[in-house]
Amino acid sequence: MITSTTNPLMKELRRIQARKVPGRFIAEGEDLVQAAVAAGWTPEHHLRADLEVDGAVLAKVSGLGSGTRELAVYAERWGEPQGPLAVALWGVKDPGNVGTIIRGALAFGAGSVIIGPETADPFGPKAVRASMGAIFAVPVARAAAIDALPGTTIALAARSGDVLAGPWPAERGPVTVVVGAERQGLPPSVVNSCTMAAHIPIASESLNAAMAATLALYELSRVGGA
Amino acid sequence: MITSTTNPLMKELRRIQARKVPGRFIAEGEDLVQAAVAAGWTPEHHLRADLEVDGAVLAKVSGLGSGTRELAVYAERWGEPQGPLAVALWGVKDPGNVGTIIRGALAFGAGSVIIGPETADPFGPKAVRASMGAIFAVPVARAAAIDALPGTTIALAARSGDVLAGPWPAERGPVTVVVGAERQGLPPSVVNSCTMAAHIPIASESLNAAMAATLALYELSRVGGA
Repeated sequence: MITSTTNPLMKELRRIQARKVPGRFIAEGEDLVQAAVAAGWTPEHHLRADLEVDGAVLAKVSGLGSGTRELAVYAERWGEPQGPLAVALWGVKDPGNVGTIIRGALAFGAGSVIIGPETADPFGPKAVRASMGAIFAVPVARAAAIDALPGTTIALAARSGDVLAGPWPAERGPVTVVVGAERQGLPPSVVNSCTMAAHIPIASESLNAAMAATLALYELSRVGGA
Repeated sequence: MITSTTNPLMKELRRIQARKVPGRFIAEGEDLVQAAVAAGWTPEHHLRADLEVDGAVLAKVSGLGSGTRELAVYAERWGEPQGPLAVALWGVKDPGNVGTIIRGALAFGAGSVIIGPETADPFGPKAVRASMGAIFAVPVARAAAIDALPGTTIALAARSGDVLAGPWPAERGPVTVVVGAERQGLPPSVVNSCTMAAHIPIASESLNAAMAATLALYELSRVGGA
C-alpha cells in the first residue's frame, strides 16, 4: 500500500490532475469509476483508499474538496466527428457546461460531441465530473472548422433563423448542432459558415449554453411530434 | 462612504448573506442588480464599490469568491401557486438546480415556481446567482402538499408513466410539473398523489434535475408539434 505523498505514482497523479500529462486523465469517485467499467474502459491505475493507497495520501491528490475514496487514470480517447446526430462546441469555455452537454448528448443519443476552437477540455476534472460518466460513453472528437462537421450544420443562435423544430428525419442525413460561447454566442462568421441558423423560442433573454444544447438535442431526436 | 467592516449595515449584510435575516436577500453583481431594476424591484439598500462603500469593505461581505463591485438587498416576495404552467420542486436540494429551474421557468413562460418540502431556499445566494436574475421575474410560491398545486399535476418520473408529450392545450386548464430529488426522484407516495406520471425518454440512466425540469417546461409550452 502506498503511504507516502512523495511516491512517484502520487506525484504523477498530481500532474495528471493538473492536466500536465498529455493524453491521460483522472475520474474520481465510485460513480465515475463504475461508469467507466460499464462502458468497457480499462484504467491504467485504479486506486482505492486504504487498499492500494493510504486514505490521507489519496485525499491529497483528489481534485474534490472533500477528498475521494477512489480514483482511476485513463488514456484519453478521441474519435472522429460523427452523426447521425452530433453537437459541436464553438467557444464553450466553462468545463461544467462541456461536461453537462456530454451528459445531454448521451441522454439523447448523439453520435459524438465535437470540441471546436476555444472550448474547455472535455477530459479536465470539472468536465469529467459534470458529465456524470457520460465521457466514457459518448465519442468525443475535435474539429477546427465548420466544414469538418458531419452533415447539415445548424447554428444555434439566440434569436435568428427559424424556430428549431424536430425531429430530424433520417432521410435528411446527419445533422450537427453548433453551440457558441456562454455569453456571446456564435460569431456571425461561424453562423454564416453553417447550413442554417435556428433558435429555441424563449420568453426570456437567454438560456445557459448547456441547457440550450441539450434542448436542441432533445428536439432533434424527438420521437413524436410534427 | 462606508469604510469600516464593523459598520452596522455591513454587519447586517453578512447576516443576510448567511440567510439569518428572515425575509431579506442579497443579489450580487451588476447583471443581477440590473435584472431587478428591469423587473421593477426597488432595493432596500444598493451598494457600489468606492461609491457608497469602500471596495475592500464591500468585498468582505461578498458571497462570491472574487468579491463584487455592486450588491443590493431586497425583501423576499412569495406569491401563490399559479399556472397556467407551473413547476413544483419536491426535494430539489441543490440551490444551483433551484436557480437554474427558475431561469428555465422564465424562459418557457411558467406562471410560478412552487417550492415544496425539502427543497433549497430560492432566495439563497447560490440559487439567486444560478437564476441569472429570473428570481425577480418569475413568481415563487410555497406548497406543502400536492393537492395545493394548480390544475393537473404531472409527476416527472425517470421511467414510469407516459412519454411526456406537449404542448399542453389551454382548454385542459392549468398544469404543474412536479420534480423530485436529484438522485432519488419522487417517492411513490408523491407520484401516486399526482394526476399522472410522465417521463422524458432518454437513452442514458439519468438527467440532471434542472435539465429534466426545463425540458418538461419546454415540451409542455411548445408552440408547434402534435
